[in-house]
Amino acid sequence: MLKNAMTQPVLSVDIGGTKILAALVSPGGEVLASDHSPTPSQEGYEAILERVESAARRLIHKSGSAKVQPTAAAVAVAGVTDVVKGIVTTSPNLPLWRDVPLKTLLEQRLGLETFLLNDARAAALGEHRVGAGRGASNMVFITVSTGIGGGIIIGGQLYQGTCGAAGEIGHMVIDVNGPRCGCGNKGCLEALASGTAIAREATERLAHGIRSSIPQYAGGSGDITAQAVAAAAGHGDRLAQGVISRAARYLGVGLANLINIFNPEVVVVGGGVAKMGEMLLKPARRVMRQKAFKLPASVVRIVPAQLGAEAGVIGAAMYALECRSVRRAPPADSS
Amino acid sequence: MLKNAMTQPVLSVDIGGTKILAALVSPGGEVLASDHSPTPSQEGYEAILERVESAARRLIHKSGSAKVQPTAAAVAVAGVTDVVKGIVTTSPNLPLWRDVPLKTLLEQRLGLETFLLNDARAAALGEHRVGAGRGASNMVFITVSTGIGGGIIIGGQLYQGTCGAAGEIGHMVIDVNGPRCGCGNKGCLEALASGTAIAREATERLAHGIRSSIPQYAGGSGDITAQAVAAAAGHGDRLAQGVISRAARYLGVGLANLINIFNPEVVVVGGGVAKMGEMLLKPARRVMRQKAFKLPASVVRIVPAQLGAEAGVIGAAMYALECRSVRRAPPADSS
Repeated sequence: MLKNAMTQPVLSVDIGGTKILAALVSPGGEVLASDHSPTPSQEGYEAILERVESAARRLIHKSGSAKVQPTAAAVAVAGVTDVVKGIVTTSPNLPLWRDVPLKTLLEQRLGLETFLLNDARAAALGEHRVGAGRGASNMVFITVSTGIGGGIIIGGQLYQGTCGAAGEIGHMVIDVNGPRCGCGNKGCLEALASGTAIAREATERLAHGIRSSIPQYAGGSGDITAQAVAAAAGHGDRLAQGVISRAARYLGVGLANLINIFNPEVVVVGGGVAKMGEMLLKPARRVMRQKAFKLPASVVRIVPAQLGAEAGVIGAAMYALECRSVRRAPPADSS
Repeated sequence: MLKNAMTQPVLSVDIGGTKILAALVSPGGEVLASDHSPTPSQEGYEAILERVESAARRLIHKSGSAKVQPTAAAVAVAGVTDVVKGIVTTSPNLPLWRDVPLKTLLEQRLGLETFLLNDARAAALGEHRVGAGRGASNMVFITVSTGIGGGIIIGGQLYQGTCGAAGEIGHMVIDVNGPRCGCGNKGCLEALASGTAIAREATERLAHGIRSSIPQYAGGSGDITAQAVAAAAGHGDRLAQGVISRAARYLGVGLANLINIFNPEVVVVGGGVAKMGEMLLKPARRVMRQKAFKLPASVVRIVPAQLGAEAGVIGAAMYALECRSVRRAPPADSS
């Protein structure tokens, strides 16, 4: 059994607000096969579980040989996950989910022991094991996308807190009188520096009639997205650059807070918005250095993530293998 | 040697902005003897080291018997401490200190191996080992006093980050446009909820001519202190109660951030300002519950500290003993 756990892949699933990524991941963190499908986020969790099960069957069929049949499953979800109870309590992207016992439900459908965690925590572990944070004793991961999530590595291990909720750095209030966040509070980092915040700020500024090329990059729907703002900024659009600078300054404040709190070796910045790279990271680093204490600011590296959209499935797979390996290890005093 | 380390006391010193507390602390965390002296904070570090050395000699003389001679020293300082290099880089309360190699300087004076850490980190460890956080796997300590400091326990161990600077939760920005903090930033938790912030807010409100009994509690100098505000609030003074409520609300926002980040079992609140107890903690808990995610908010206990002014010397002593014990333990793979 132990040998299987070490050599067989993990069936790993990342359930996001818009898409489901399922993959077979090797114990070394390699994605052996993957399957993409849309998330029927308005249909309740049973429809989503159905999709996950179908994706799993396609993957297992695709992999063919019995030698690469998974012996465990892992599932990462964008939501507040109680990893002790195996429950997703709430999810901003899956509004119908409320206390869904996802671990048990997936175990019944897949016939595999299943390990559940938050998607940003999974991505943090992935980036630490095989991505931008390799070898760091302590690391903070921040994913800047539609929302802002996070994960914390302490002593080389994923820190999840008492029940798996640790790492919600997107809901750190940094401007107590600031704009309303999706979570209900005012001035969360997510409400100021996420893709949603960038799109909203650009839309407001455009409504003032300032000339900008952003709408040219907005695609067919005409909706202003963070990607459109980034594209326009990259082509010299002043309004777009101003909006990105503003988000970067707030991100810098958030980073300064995290660096004062964690004194980490490295902060890994991932997520769709972070794909714009130095346009966002350079001003964020500058603000961080102005605001954090000199000692922790002088030792930290702030680097882009390396694993892209696969970070979650890779990290969730590593998590499943590591949870099993810890459980199977003989007690320390018997060695 | 190991036996000595386990049975002999530690000479433990807490260097604060106004006073130096030196103590002989048993391996069980008991203060066997203590010595108080004022901090000559305007005189440079040599004068302070002189005081520490004198206090140490008095304590060793007081203890008399050779059986209770300390075999190690510990020093906790209110400042940014690089525990890897044994240096105090800066200190808000000791304005003349800049990159002071305190560990080496004290070792030369005391003839004892000396372990250096930040005072709030020391107090956190003290509260975890023998105070309000006993038995918790993870804990956040916050000390609300002239300033606001903190310390973090992860997996039962003090987490200090890469160089000992982790835990500066008083300099978490929660109101990016808020009042200026002593650190230079705007809207740090310390600038909104510390004793200094309470005194400043009360002074400003009094300057508007609102009737209040606060000045009656201000003592001989007439200076408005957080203690005076707390005393007046305790006697029903509306202005004072409003000022305390405001600080408590900000403290609640800071607690919500920490609970979203750490999902801790317990938050221990210490420091001089926290002595006002439920008057501060009750509204702070209420705001925390409104603002933090339900899951981590439902499991955390927010409790007052138990060790008072001795938390720092007790925790620093525990730190020295634990650092030595880890170093002396045989490597794990040789067992």
